[in-house]
Amino acid sequence: MRHLLSAADLDRSAAVALLDTAAGMAATQEREIKKLPTLRGRTVVNLFFEDSTRTRISFETAAKRLSADVINFSAKGSSVSKGESLKDTALTLQAMGADAVVVRHQASGAPHRLAHSGWVGSAVVNAGDGTHQHPTQALLDAFTLRRHLVGAGDAGLGRGLDGLHVAIVGDVLHSRVARSNVDLLHTLGARVTLVAPPTLLPVGVDAWTCATSYHLDEVLAQDAPDAIMMLRVQRERMGPGATGAVGGGTGFFPSALEYTREYGLDARRLAMLPDHAIVMHPGPMNRGLEISADAADSSRAVIVEQVTNGVAVRMAVLYTLLAGEREAL
Amino acid sequence: MRHLLSAADLDRSAAVALLDTAAGMAATQEREIKKLPTLRGRTVVNLFFEDSTRTRISFETAAKRLSADVINFSAKGSSVSKGESLKDTALTLQAMGADAVVVRHQASGAPHRLAHSGWVGSAVVNAGDGTHQHPTQALLDAFTLRRHLVGAGDAGLGRGLDGLHVAIVGDVLHSRVARSNVDLLHTLGARVTLVAPPTLLPVGVDAWTCATSYHLDEVLAQDAPDAIMMLRVQRERMGPGATGAVGGGTGFFPSALEYTREYGLDARRLAMLPDHAIVMHPGPMNRGLEISADAADSSRAVIVEQVTNGVAVRMAVLYTLLAGEREAL
Amino acid sequence: MRHLLSAADLDRSAAVALLDTAAGMAATQEREIKKLPTLRGRTVVNLFFEDSTRTRISFETAAKRLSADVINFSAKGSSVSKGESLKDTALTLQAMGADAVVVRHQASGAPHRLAHSGWVGSAVVNAGDGTHQHPTQALLDAFTLRRHLVGAGDAGLGRGLDGLHVAIVGDVLHSRVARSNVDLLHTLGARVTLVAPPTLLPVGVDAWTCATSYHLDEVLAQDAPDAIMMLRVQRERMGPGATGAVGGGTGFFPSALEYTREYGLDARRLAMLPDHAIVMHPGPMNRGLEISADAADSSRAVIVEQVTNGVAVRMAVLYTLLAGEREAL
Repeated sequence: MRHLLSAADLDRSAAVALLDTAAGMAATQEREIKKLPTLRGRTVVNLFFEDSTRTRISFETAAKRLSADVINFSAKGSSVSKGESLKDTALTLQAMGADAVVVRHQASGAPHRLAHSGWVGSAVVNAGDGTHQHPTQALLDAFTLRRHLVGAGDAGLGRGLDGLHVAIVGDVLHSRVARSNVDLLHTLGARVTLVAPPTLLPVGVDAWTCATSYHLDEVLAQDAPDAIMMLRVQRERMGPGATGAVGGGTGFFPSALEYTREYGLDARRLAMLPDHAIVMHPGPMNRGLEISADAADSSRAVIVEQVTNGVAVRMAVLYTLLAGEREAL
Repeated sequence: MRHLLSAADLDRSAAVALLDTAAGMAATQEREIKKLPTLRGRTVVNLFFEDSTRTRISFETAAKRLSADVINFSAKGSSVSKGESLKDTALTLQAMGADAVVVRHQASGAPHRLAHSGWVGSAVVNAGDGTHQHPTQALLDAFTLRRHLVGAGDAGLGRGLDGLHVAIVGDVLHSRVARSNVDLLHTLGARVTLVAPPTLLPVGVDAWTCATSYHLDEVLAQDAPDAIMMLRVQRERMGPGATGAVGGGTGFFPSALEYTREYGLDARRLAMLPDHAIVMHPGPMNRGLEISADAADSSRAVIVEQVTNGVAVRMAVLYTLLAGEREAL
Repeated sequence: MRHLLSAADLDRSAAVALLDTAAGMAATQEREIKKLPTLRGRTVVNLFFEDSTRTRISFETAAKRLSADVINFSAKGSSVSKGESLKDTALTLQAMGADAVVVRHQASGAPHRLAHSGWVGSAVVNAGDGTHQHPTQALLDAFTLRRHLVGAGDAGLGRGLDGLHVAIVGDVLHSRVARSNVDLLHTLGARVTLVAPPTLLPVGVDAWTCATSYHLDEVLAQDAPDAIMMLRVQRERMGPGATGAVGGGTGFFPSALEYTREYGLDARRLAMLPDHAIVMHPGPMNRGLEISADAADSSRAVIVEQVTNGVAVRMAVLYTLLAGEREAL
């Protein structure tokens, strides 16, 4: 593996290998001294064209736990905003000796261009591009699902997610999280149902490797999902007049009240889930909108654990890209 | 000690122990290689909801000198500004494995909420909350006072500030520095006089463990303080029309000219102090406003040394919270 | 050497010694583990009053490769913007134990003031001040020239740039890069021709240690330079109405079209250079303006290598200032 650009690029054995490596990393994180010397002397650059503190510090933490040096490069106020091309930025980072470039970009496909234009020899990790992909999010979700529903620690090693059913609920149209999860969950043998209002499902969703529904209550009543993954409502994507409400102005979004009523996870819907089912959310949550405080803080919610697993998964990705072929853990 | 939230939480023995640990840290900082391996593998997150480069880099330096990994999290542009709650931010940091969270927040009480709501297992250090507390500032001030007026290095170990008299001058109303110092200096046996115009003293100050005065010249002439601590005039807290002048628009502040005349420290007032007295300021100074260049640069001023002591004190706090009970220095 | 403030401060032997040290550093950067323990326990502060991500991360990478701790201090949003003086900022950094302060400032002379006012004991490195100097840029350019035109690796050790001819083309008036290069290239024995429209040459350029010309084609046809260094057109320095065009509003700049026609490096001009000649640019480039994509990506262009050499040169500068007299590499 040279780069990690899309969850769709991972075949089953590569995905399972990453999850297994992440399990090993997670075990090291439970020690008092969490640091491994593995990537000492290597440089990881966080190249963020879009703000995302959460994702940036997860990668930064992962890289530092592996003893890599981390350089944070926010494109705001940089020469990028003075008209430098993505190409020249990439060449610059490469020339400074970056071993891996973790890139977040508002344009779908930017990490792919970075990796495949022959500009850089560094490993490229997609940390979210436009509405396209966010593969480490999909990996941490898969890791969390496997741990809870297949087998924790060594018990899950080597295994996929065969036979599990996951419902992903919300603004699928704008969600790279949904897209990446559909790809990876399918690869790992799980079945996915996307639940959203018609206006928030992308054109062409019929060709995706998943089912779709407009009715959350129906899916819960008839389909007994093993996990429900609530997507964040992207307030910032909405048109003017949307302050405090969930759009309407754009024609895409129902009102906040309607959204919560039709697609929000609350105590009533929580009770409809099978006993073993878990509640997931990529964060940050809009409590009271797509998820009620009840649901967010319930014992079925593994939302905080997803964050912890994010560090382990990103350690595994950096390890695999930068040290994987040369040494064993 | 699990957290450091308020100077008022420290009893005399805890405060003296921190000052003693800081003295040990200060000694290490005089070596050529200033770094200690003590917190290797630990992660300290600087969670700053308010800009404060000075305080942030003091904590960052302290943590790095102890070999901790440091993650800077500025709330600007983060999911916090997208509506994430303090609770979810805290849970996220905790989930990523933060051993200590150093928090600066515009709302009084935010660090207390963070520490005592059961959200995080991490140690919480208050790096300034609203107009409430800034305990590491009080500790570095106490450390500086002890070193100069009680005994430097080993000679001060185990001792408080008994019998000293400290005048704190300026905008007490908005000052977390004044509040924290009144608490800690009293605990350590010193006597404090707050000197301010009536409008810049808080309601209820009569119940504080200190004296108050409206007249700086009187205090200097009659009371012979061992130290005078000038507070920063918070230009940014003033109403419109205040550019270049010290308010008036708010009704709280006298004009800049009046303020300087009544409460500014200049060469004349410097000469009224006892020979051994020291001049302190938490920085950054407004030279020519609350303190003249004469006074700021005089041989009695220990303002720069306060900054140095800030690093030692913050090393002591992080050490005590994260390693204190497990190993000796 | 206590500070590095201006390329003009370096005599030939000091400059050659820095290039030789940089050659040693470059060799370490070709290893898999690029890290040296040399500056462990030392603190390097990047004090940037002006955004310059490129220069900042080059210094940050250099310092981290030498195992120093790095503190990034952006003056935006700091107490500097609350009216703190450069003096107090400097005293603060010094008091926190900064061993070196790398300073970028919009005012010419600021690093000099920092170093020579007796405020700080730290080593000061000028990372660009106004239109004045950018000495590490000149050093990396000289390093690149020596490597390509004198001798790579050990073959260049101890040698200057005697007999080489370098053409520097563009907005010399506003360019600290041009100024620093004229000084250093002259010191190292090279001959320099500045090529620019009359309005973009500074008053007093006649007294500089170089030739000048208004006609790029003439210089290429008659002078056969060994290297051509294209300066960045500073779009951000231009007056209003300049969006997308190269000024006109200010009276200084020709139009973009004229500029490119008269002073841009394109395939035709590239073909006029001697076979061994190299093409340089300090970055970031405005492709299509001062340099065509053809020229930027040609095999003669060493622009990306300049970036790599920048890290080696900055390692050499930090090493020389902080460890040079005490230990051998």
